[in-house]
Amino acid sequence: MNEFDLIERYFAPLAGPEGLRLKDDTAVFLPKPGHDLLITTDSFVEGVHFPKAMYGADVAERLLRTNLSDIAAKAGKPLGYQLSVSMGADAMEQWIPAFAKGLQTTQDEYGCRLWGGDTTRTDGPAVFSITMIGEVAAESMVQRAGASIGDDIWVTGILGDAKLGCDLVTNQRIEPAPSGEYLFSFETAYWRPEPAFAYRRILKRFATSAADISDGIMADVAHISKLSESCAALNFDALPFSLGAETWAEAQDNPVQARKILASFGDDYGVVFTSKVESRQAIFDAARTAKLKLTLVGSMQTGKGSVCLDVDGQTMDWPQKGYLHK
Amino acid sequence: MNEFDLIERYFAPLAGPEGLRLKDDTAVFLPKPGHDLLITTDSFVEGVHFPKAMYGADVAERLLRTNLSDIAAKAGKPLGYQLSVSMGADAMEQWIPAFAKGLQTTQDEYGCRLWGGDTTRTDGPAVFSITMIGEVAAESMVQRAGASIGDDIWVTGILGDAKLGCDLVTNQRIEPAPSGEYLFSFETAYWRPEPAFAYRRILKRFATSAADISDGIMADVAHISKLSESCAALNFDALPFSLGAETWAEAQDNPVQARKILASFGDDYGVVFTSKVESRQAIFDAARTAKLKLTLVGSMQTGKGSVCLDVDGQTMDWPQKGYLHK
Repeated sequence: MNEFDLIERYFAPLAGPEGLRLKDDTAVFLPKPGHDLLITTDSFVEGVHFPKAMYGADVAERLLRTNLSDIAAKAGKPLGYQLSVSMGADAMEQWIPAFAKGLQTTQDEYGCRLWGGDTTRTDGPAVFSITMIGEVAAESMVQRAGASIGDDIWVTGILGDAKLGCDLVTNQRIEPAPSGEYLFSFETAYWRPEPAFAYRRILKRFATSAADISDGIMADVAHISKLSESCAALNFDALPFSLGAETWAEAQDNPVQARKILASFGDDYGVVFTSKVESRQAIFDAARTAKLKLTLVGSMQTGKGSVCLDVDGQTMDWPQKGYLHK
Repeated sequence: MNEFDLIERYFAPLAGPEGLRLKDDTAVFLPKPGHDLLITTDSFVEGVHFPKAMYGADVAERLLRTNLSDIAAKAGKPLGYQLSVSMGADAMEQWIPAFAKGLQTTQDEYGCRLWGGDTTRTDGPAVFSITMIGEVAAESMVQRAGASIGDDIWVTGILGDAKLGCDLVTNQRIEPAPSGEYLFSFETAYWRPEPAFAYRRILKRFATSAADISDGIMADVAHISKLSESCAALNFDALPFSLGAETWAEAQDNPVQARKILASFGDDYGVVFTSKVESRQAIFDAARTAKLKLTLVGSMQTGKGSVCLDVDGQTMDWPQKGYLHK
């Protein structure tokens, strides 16, 4: 099957009307008046962003969800995406059907469609790139820039599962072996991170800045603080590690060090955001009403970069940086 | 230099206001009311779409121009682009400065800006992908679909130079050695194909369908005919090969076969389009007034696919297909 046939058979059914059934090489789209468009790109390299020889549907879900996560962190709504696939000719034929299935599941869940892309051959590691287009009411995108000294720092959902899921997927094991329910949570967190669309109203109404957690929470809050010339100070004991991750950390020789590793690792794909102190109670209330897990983890202080504080308010050593390759 | 530094130093200066100085991972853009957006993606793999170890500025120009070509074929205006770069860590540091320079030159020439993207590491061949966003007055995009039986087929500019440029770049030589002026034209056609924006008014006013010539004119007209359930019949002797390409073909053992090879090769990046027969004189006049090379090369007939006709109107054998990997 050549790639025109592969596109026709597996990708064309994913296309929205903007994609002209992928019969054209250009998508066309009439934007909604009074709305800004959001555009973001995330690429995956085989062997770097996911292990070699993984199931196509898993890779597709993870790739699409990481792009959706950027739109979610901006309080946006996803519309469509362009997909670039570079892989070996033989692999393509065997792999694309499952890959397309993973795209279908995910785009159905989040209400976006394939608009177009390109398919190329490489004899090296496969490379996938998605450019996602979303929308938001004009001038209401929550940016990385915008935090002020004194702002609260919040994190959505839980941390740590994705790192353990990555270890499981990459090395086939972690020590100690987790119980079945945690195992499932870890693998799910790695392959199917949950873009934080559920928090859209809260972000829209309260966030002064936001970033998705792709490089590790310490690195991602540093992106925010860099743009506000301040220091993101996180309270180590407030970080909302999952029960599974806590259980794993407690079983390590050095549980504090283990938690540091969890907090330095990317791929959690929740959102870290800042807000005015005056909004604190309203945010707690909004989260409770919407039954959303939202944790106050620190505040923007004078200084630069990001630090973690221990229970006594002292700066902790922080050996690891976030993923530089991302 | 890590990639945050590379992005800051080399890519951030290319960013338009939509790109938020590349300090954010998402671009934001307020579309012009009453305009459709055009979105297209083209990817290059090192060793497939350009030879290994080429000068970064050349690769950048070719990559950006091929994407611009898609927008030009739709009668659109380019706005901005997302760039995905996957390459080796060492190569990145040495290669990106020239690559960024090539992007700068090209985006200045065509009036578009970098909006964002992603930078990743691979130990395999480099992969570059651009998603270009353009605009066009609402519902005025010229699509691949839209041709009718009886329509004229036109091609912009000249054909053949890019194939010889590719041979030169790939093999360092062609036989017979071209004279200096042709050599320059060949290499320019390969590295700096000219997106057909000069033809925008003609396309907008007259074209019933259009495609850029990326896969070889025979394959590209077949994309058009497939969507109109007709056959694109090209007159072989009408194909506007460049003087350099004609000179090369005439010096081959079989000049007809040589011209077939030229017409089967992609990368010319002109535009092939169809129009109503009634518009023929007006198109000739418009091209003459604008001093644009435009050639009537055939017509849409009953049947399917594409054929070349000889001077007697007989179907010629056509051994090669367009690039399938594109």
